[in-house]
Amino acid sequence: MRLKSETSELRSILAINLRRLRAELALSQERLADLANLHRTYVGSIERSERNVSIDNIAKLAQALGVEPSELLKDLTQ
Amino acid sequence: MRLKSETSELRSILAINLRRLRAELALSQERLADLANLHRTYVGSIERSERNVSIDNIAKLAQALGVEPSELLKDLTQ
Repeated sequence: MRLKSETSELRSILAINLRRLRAELALSQERLADLANLHRTYVGSIERSERNVSIDNIAKLAQALGVEPSELLKDLTQ
Repeated sequence: MRLKSETSELRSILAINLRRLRAELALSQERLADLANLHRTYVGSIERSERNVSIDNIAKLAQALGVEPSELLKDLTQ
């Protein structure tokens, strides 16, 4: 159960960071999706921790948001 | 082309970090695969930047290596 919990936790960390960075840049989900060359509903599902996002898409999101990819996986609540 | 290059770059960063951390812990690919509950050939292909690894598997690898997931995506060559 530990692995499963860790796994879901990282999806949540990514979701929280995406929402935070998107808010800081005043970007809609649609605009971020456009910038990252992803679908709007896909970005929405990532922000609801529903998706097992791939490293290539993490790279696209980081580039669109102007941050290092590692920033997207950082737990800032610790 | 920029996106594509960024994308491949992040796979390489993960590959380099995996190999480095695995060496530091003196773990074989097989042992790391066991610890992360992944297949040995899969870990090998990640270390050759061949795989579009998912966030859930990044979480598993980080847990197996005892590091924060964000550490696996950090570019230490910069």
